[in-house]
Amino acid sequence: MIIQRKGTFSVTNKVITISRQFGSGGRTIGKAVAARLGIPYYGKELVDAIAKESGFSHEFIEEIGEYASVTSSFLFNIAVSAHPMGLVDSMSVSDKLYICQTNVIRDLAEKGPCVLVGRCADFILKDRPDTLHIFIHSDMEHRAERIVRLYGETKQSPEKRLQDKDSKRKVYYKHYTNRNWGEAQNYDICLDSGALGVDKCVDIICDIAEME
Amino acid sequence: MIIQRKGTFSVTNKVITISRQFGSGGRTIGKAVAARLGIPYYGKELVDAIAKESGFSHEFIEEIGEYASVTSSFLFNIAVSAHPMGLVDSMSVSDKLYICQTNVIRDLAEKGPCVLVGRCADFILKDRPDTLHIFIHSDMEHRAERIVRLYGETKQSPEKRLQDKDSKRKVYYKHYTNRNWGEAQNYDICLDSGALGVDKCVDIICDIAEME
Repeated sequence: MIIQRKGTFSVTNKVITISRQFGSGGRTIGKAVAARLGIPYYGKELVDAIAKESGFSHEFIEEIGEYASVTSSFLFNIAVSAHPMGLVDSMSVSDKLYICQTNVIRDLAEKGPCVLVGRCADFILKDRPDTLHIFIHSDMEHRAERIVRLYGETKQSPEKRLQDKDSKRKVYYKHYTNRNWGEAQNYDICLDSGALGVDKCVDIICDIAEME
Repeated sequence: MIIQRKGTFSVTNKVITISRQFGSGGRTIGKAVAARLGIPYYGKELVDAIAKESGFSHEFIEEIGEYASVTSSFLFNIAVSAHPMGLVDSMSVSDKLYICQTNVIRDLAEKGPCVLVGRCADFILKDRPDTLHIFIHSDMEHRAERIVRLYGETKQSPEKRLQDKDSKRKVYYKHYTNRNWGEAQNYDICLDSGALGVDKCVDIICDIAEME
């Protein structure tokens, strides 16, 4: 399929991971790419599969699955006490969830062509030869406008919300991958969706994914 | 022209900066982009212009202009003692050279459409509205193969040469820009030339540069 790297070239698979800054339109781009290429998009379905594999709730997975630091939280404590394995197991809940995510993402990539958004899929599938890794980012101004338009206003300023998400995602990513969030060398392509526009990002990714 | 950002939109100019890891083919890509778009490419000509502006030799500019740390070197000392301003001026030679580079790069961008490779042009022109910023990188394997093919073997292994260049460029970039080298968010597009191939990188950049 797309790109040959460390491994065997294969025309039978086409897996695209999209990592993105919060508010950059990465999910919208991922969905549009999947629709145009006629392959599944795993966003909510990824959370469903992780919930099934892990036994944790959707809400918990969405809160912890990309943002957890090693600190505890209200949701974190509820999840631990409610989980069948409770506190007896020495592995942290965040670590257990990460392992479940890893298994689910590897299984989905194994099943066939798809678009996977977030959840360290870029790192989890880094040695898979037939995978295209994308990073979508944008400046604060474009992202702030986008999150207010899509999710509305909150007590916190959009800039503060973005800084908070950026910071948590960075810590989470570093913790589980030992890589720096947003480093160009971890991706085949990084695109500024604010400068280029969402549609152009979709065009570029599909064009590359369709390379022979 | 290309991309509207922080400033006034202009159809009269088209400036492309290409930052690149050593051995990633960034210069080759820059030359090909400039040729296809019919605009000047400033590689060696950039060194000529900096030499004229600064009074330093080509050799010194090539050695120090992207790699200097704050430590001194043989070339560095020769340049200082040979330079008309010698050691009496409190500003370091590296700083003087950086200021000359800044002036030359701004003047070239002001003159008209062009492709500028390296020398912190991405940072120097970061607030210029009609500028497209590109970062080209590749994995160690592709880069090692490329530098041996183009520049031949040396006593040092190609991996060691690359690590050395990467490290110096990173220090230089951080020193003068206070940004981290290779962070996706500093560029409109980052491309892995090893995974995508040099020709595809040229296609993508030209396609974006030609956006209306």
